Amino acid sequence: MDKTDLARAQHLDQQDPLRSFRDRFMITDQNLIYLDGNSLGRLPKSAQEKAHQVVDTEWGDQLIRSWGQGWMETPTRIGAKLAKLIGAKPHEVILADSTSVNLFKLSMAALEVQAGRQKIITDDLNFPSDVYILQRAAELAGKENRLAIIPSEDGIYGPAERLAAELDADTVLLTLSHTVFKSGYTYDMAALTAEAHQHGALVLWDLSHSAGALPVDLNAANADLAVGCTYKYLNGGPGAPAFLFVREDLQEQLDNPISGWMGQHRMFDFSLQYQPEADLRKFLTGTPPVLSMSLIEPGVDLLLEAGMEAVRQKSLHQTQYLIELWENWLVPLGFSLNSPRQPEWRGSHISLGHSEGLRIDRALIDAYHVIPDFRAPDNIRLGIAPLYTSFEEVYRAALALKEIVEQRKYLDYSTEPPEVT
Amino acid sequence: MDKTDLARAQHLDQQDPLRSFRDRFMITDQNLIYLDGNSLGRLPKSAQEKAHQVVDTEWGDQLIRSWGQGWMETPTRIGAKLAKLIGAKPHEVILADSTSVNLFKLSMAALEVQAGRQKIITDDLNFPSDVYILQRAAELAGKENRLAIIPSEDGIYGPAERLAAELDADTVLLTLSHTVFKSGYTYDMAALTAEAHQHGALVLWDLSHSAGALPVDLNAANADLAVGCTYKYLNGGPGAPAFLFVREDLQEQLDNPISGWMGQHRMFDFSLQYQPEADLRKFLTGTPPVLSMSLIEPGVDLLLEAGMEAVRQKSLHQTQYLIELWENWLVPLGFSLNSPRQPEWRGSHISLGHSEGLRIDRALIDAYHVIPDFRAPDNIRLGIAPLYTSFEEVYRAALALKEIVEQRKYLDYSTEPPEVT
Repeated sequence: MDKTDLARAQHLDQQDPLRSFRDRFMITDQNLIYLDGNSLGRLPKSAQEKAHQVVDTEWGDQLIRSWGQGWMETPTRIGAKLAKLIGAKPHEVILADSTSVNLFKLSMAALEVQAGRQKIITDDLNFPSDVYILQRAAELAGKENRLAIIPSEDGIYGPAERLAAELDADTVLLTLSHTVFKSGYTYDMAALTAEAHQHGALVLWDLSHSAGALPVDLNAANADLAVGCTYKYLNGGPGAPAFLFVREDLQEQLDNPISGWMGQHRMFDFSLQYQPEADLRKFLTGTPPVLSMSLIEPGVDLLLEAGMEAVRQKSLHQTQYLIELWENWLVPLGFSLNSPRQPEWRGSHISLGHSEGLRIDRALIDAYHVIPDFRAPDNIRLGIAPLYTSFEEVYRAALALKEIVEQRKYLDYSTEPPEVT
Repeated sequence: MDKTDLARAQHLDQQDPLRSFRDRFMITDQNLIYLDGNSLGRLPKSAQEKAHQVVDTEWGDQLIRSWGQGWMETPTRIGAKLAKLIGAKPHEVILADSTSVNLFKLSMAALEVQAGRQKIITDDLNFPSDVYILQRAAELAGKENRLAIIPSEDGIYGPAERLAAELDADTVLLTLSHTVFKSGYTYDMAALTAEAHQHGALVLWDLSHSAGALPVDLNAANADLAVGCTYKYLNGGPGAPAFLFVREDLQEQLDNPISGWMGQHRMFDFSLQYQPEADLRKFLTGTPPVLSMSLIEPGVDLLLEAGMEAVRQKSLHQTQYLIELWENWLVPLGFSLNSPRQPEWRGSHISLGHSEGLRIDRALIDAYHVIPDFRAPDNIRLGIAPLYTSFEEVYRAALALKEIVEQRKYLDYSTEPPEVT
């Protein structure tokens, strides 16, 4: 079968061992090709049911009694499940706040625990707001001039060797996006963690684009700290609370800078003296948004049922397939591959660059009912969520890109910068 | 009519101009007397509908497109509505994070902007986790030995005069619960703010037990900063995100210590340099939990429709009625009034103390289907939420307290400390 034949895509879908998982999601429009699960995952049907239960029964009927019937354990219960997806122990992962707030908490904790060390290292592929958080955290810790942002050479591959070379005895913290948001490049977590540990530095991984997208093994890498979001590949719902990981032997010595009552030992004693829990609950702060947090569980359950190895196998197959279609159809039309070609360096999304990227993106959405997202300056980002993305969708999206440029359909769209994408 | 006659309670309900609002809430069990709206407000029927819309349509069907169809403005849109309930301008209130995280943000901002001043003042009636947040914020700002916690003389009335006497030219911040969580005592916001301003100090009010419970006029008081929760009298749902207020002329000079991307100017430029919005959005951090945040709006709308003056009038009438029943029935049975008698110092809950408080509380729930909450050491806290609390419910709760002690029913219950209340 020809590589660019629709029948081949359909054949791949028939062979797909995960194909039944698509039916577990609420899909109101079968013609919509949704390749933005890396920004906001689809709604699991079980999350829809759960929402009704939490609102109607737990809040509406049981009211305050629900705190004693499971709400209080929501951050730890779902955290323990999520831990299995990222190679951590159950008591090493907890749900709380947003990724940025958690990054602030763990960064400040790391800067405080080794206050004598000054240097903080990241790269310029990191999500910008991770860098903002680090900038302010460094200021508050009196290390404002010691944040080193190591540049990537090509904007695609992480500067792993230069990062390793930057580590020294004065380094307090290395923090990176494990899978970077534009290119999808994925760092070798174990190798960089080992390098940092040789210098006595701590490493904080942002797993936002990794959790649920590929197998992560925090314990095998002897990782120190991690944060991540739940509304992308974990399908937890818009702005669902984030998670944080602290390796068990670090939990006692690290302190939460935002010392809230959910992390207080015997909180209902109402003591005026802060006395945090000894375990990971010390990193909880305020009362969590129960409804948004509860809906994370169904998505995590689906991934546990599918298994991360099977998810990864399909993801690599689909990204490889997209790269093949790019080679056959899109290279001659001026598209560049802004993601790594080697599977071991790839996350679960592919960025295709084009000088008319923004207008092509708009044509995809408007004329072809394909939803990618766009990341300046020229990246059309195509997210693969193996639980619901089909090979036929990947095929149709690539074909749409081909037609939009061949037939110059992008000329119908504005070059004005987007307000929200 | 006798003050302790059921017919009087029923007559008061018939005369109540707000009585129709009870039907706007989901009430699954008309026999449950729910006096814990000060911990978790009831579910508005309109919030139930909104939940289905956000989950099924906005997330399930519209997916990522919903960010461009209203989600992005949720923190400011609902904040502007909430502003009307607390006497602020629309652009002075925003929804974000939890009360504790917001308290941390505004405290750190205040400590940074007047870094030369050292003293931080609060009282021992403040919610304990507000004190924890201040303790850690003071540490991070290098002022760890300068937090003054002024004690109340009786545990009921706020030490307003002693707080005023503590203010001096070295004071950077005074922060208090406007209505305190145990006794319901409510400070004179305008008077204390004026005292603090005479010394050049900033004041940060926690409105968690005031917003939606009584009229607050931040602008009339020339208030500087405030935070508050939305899941009590605002009926926003369990752990719904909190709000924060910054007076408009302070917004430019104060900096958010947790510098996230929702507060970044032109966030979709993905610049690596933090450049906050000039307005209140600078105090946003991560992506908000959309579902939990969206459900705040229906509760705010109900209060706007009822009007805070009418709510206050009914609240004072109901707390006064409860005090009368206490005088007639409960004083001889050993109950003390742990809330102010004067209406001008009262919030919307009444705490009754009893040496057997914990067991009486348990009997109320189990044998009488009355839900108060309990705050150590001996406070049975009875919350009045005028939009759905009836005079008959107040009557029946007081009668239950009388019977439980008269008939020694509390002896059937455990004195073991509660795990969660």
